[in-house]
Amino acid sequence: MTIQHPPTPDTALWLYAHPRRPSFNDLLFRAGTEALAATHSVVTSDLYAQGFDPVFSSRDLGELAETPGNLAEIAGEAFARGQLASDVELEQQKLAAADLLVIQFPLWWYGMPAVLKGWFDRVLTSGFAYGDLDPELGVPRRYGAGGLEGRRALVIVTAGEDPGSIGPRGISGDLESILFPLTHGILWYVGIEALDLHVVHDADALDGASVEREVVRLRERLRAIRSEPGRPFRRLSDGDYHGTRALREDILPGRTDLGIHLAANA
Amino acid sequence: MTIQHPPTPDTALWLYAHPRRPSFNDLLFRAGTEALAATHSVVTSDLYAQGFDPVFSSRDLGELAETPGNLAEIAGEAFARGQLASDVELEQQKLAAADLLVIQFPLWWYGMPAVLKGWFDRVLTSGFAYGDLDPELGVPRRYGAGGLEGRRALVIVTAGEDPGSIGPRGISGDLESILFPLTHGILWYVGIEALDLHVVHDADALDGASVEREVVRLRERLRAIRSEPGRPFRRLSDGDYHGTRALREDILPGRTDLGIHLAANA
Repeated sequence: MTIQHPPTPDTALWLYAHPRRPSFNDLLFRAGTEALAATHSVVTSDLYAQGFDPVFSSRDLGELAETPGNLAEIAGEAFARGQLASDVELEQQKLAAADLLVIQFPLWWYGMPAVLKGWFDRVLTSGFAYGDLDPELGVPRRYGAGGLEGRRALVIVTAGEDPGSIGPRGISGDLESILFPLTHGILWYVGIEALDLHVVHDADALDGASVEREVVRLRERLRAIRSEPGRPFRRLSDGDYHGTRALREDILPGRTDLGIHLAANA
Repeated sequence: MTIQHPPTPDTALWLYAHPRRPSFNDLLFRAGTEALAATHSVVTSDLYAQGFDPVFSSRDLGELAETPGNLAEIAGEAFARGQLASDVELEQQKLAAADLLVIQFPLWWYGMPAVLKGWFDRVLTSGFAYGDLDPELGVPRRYGAGGLEGRRALVIVTAGEDPGSIGPRGISGDLESILFPLTHGILWYVGIEALDLHVVHDADALDGASVEREVVRLRERLRAIRSEPGRPFRRLSDGDYHGTRALREDILPGRTDLGIHLAANA
């Protein structure tokens, strides 16, 4: 099955998960979508406003709700049959059209709010976002070769902590590592290159001037977003992981940190 | 405010998040809770069966739903006023009573299913699970000194991948690192020591004999669970992070992997 969805150039989907308006996140959302509209056609998924239900359940399996087997495979078959839930189909259409995905959320318990995690659980079905062996490449369509290849993503995260406590040796763990399940496990798996994280530290303690500075910083970053290079991880298909899907012993020997999965030229 | 909740000895809360019965996860859930009942009083939170709503929202703020400010602080104030939602109050009571927490879930997109992530988002409020400066210790009540100190947790996770692809140099990242936001960012933050992960690899491809082996392996582990030592991370209060909350330069110099946060004697 073909799982290519050529994106529409200069089209962005802004995926947003914060419960409050007004709020600092809401301010960034409004300022950011407005700024991005200067260069992109911007579609939004404001998950709280939409009342998006993040709980993957039998309604995500179409007529196969009672079929035994692997849930991810069954959801993929429901996708192939056109039997996904209508809210998921709509999100897939938005995502398929976008060549830039912006994902904005507050860091809750060192991860995404549940409503956002569940968006990925439900929307990134097999068949749509990744798939089995590609006959041309000879590798499964995942990790750099997924169904959404060719897209880039900007992750905007607000955190209550400072760069020291959530940095490379900070007690909360390095934010780059904490978000690896998103930037690599989700985005790169389906072929999307994450740009450098856009982090607002100490986000609960910003005064008025700091808020304004952050709005300006986000606007400026978005102004040049089209020319920002992605930060690719290694591809499953390029030999670095040989047959075992573990990194070859001769590459960065001895290291086990998550940074080993960044491409050598990144 | 006192946020100590002395656990009831040999009481367990089994937190479970899988949408299907029958299923392999359901089999482990039933066999596991039955086996644990030989040594513990077992309470369950079967999140799918309960229809637990994982989306943190204004109903988690009591009468302060419209009050501006930090959401986590406001939820803590709602806790202090006894204004949390009744489903959250019930989960807090279950958790407060337990001295062993079992958390069972399938790995979805390299993390917890949304319904489980949102359980933590909603249930672990400030005041209940962590807090401000402790006058005796002189440190905030978090990272080893949280409101749930003295408890242990067993994380049971089923993964579709093999130990190579999700191991220390596997393309999917080391499962220990991927689950660090849970074992450290959530559990250790509130004072709960995680035991070694209980992982079932290749969980979508088990034949009948393998399923039976896994059930036996879980039963045997649970039989001796009371004597298993926890695997503590470093405490915020013990000086390893000095004033900056970054690990002291003389401890494991140069390393930035998440393993640096394990206690030296672990």
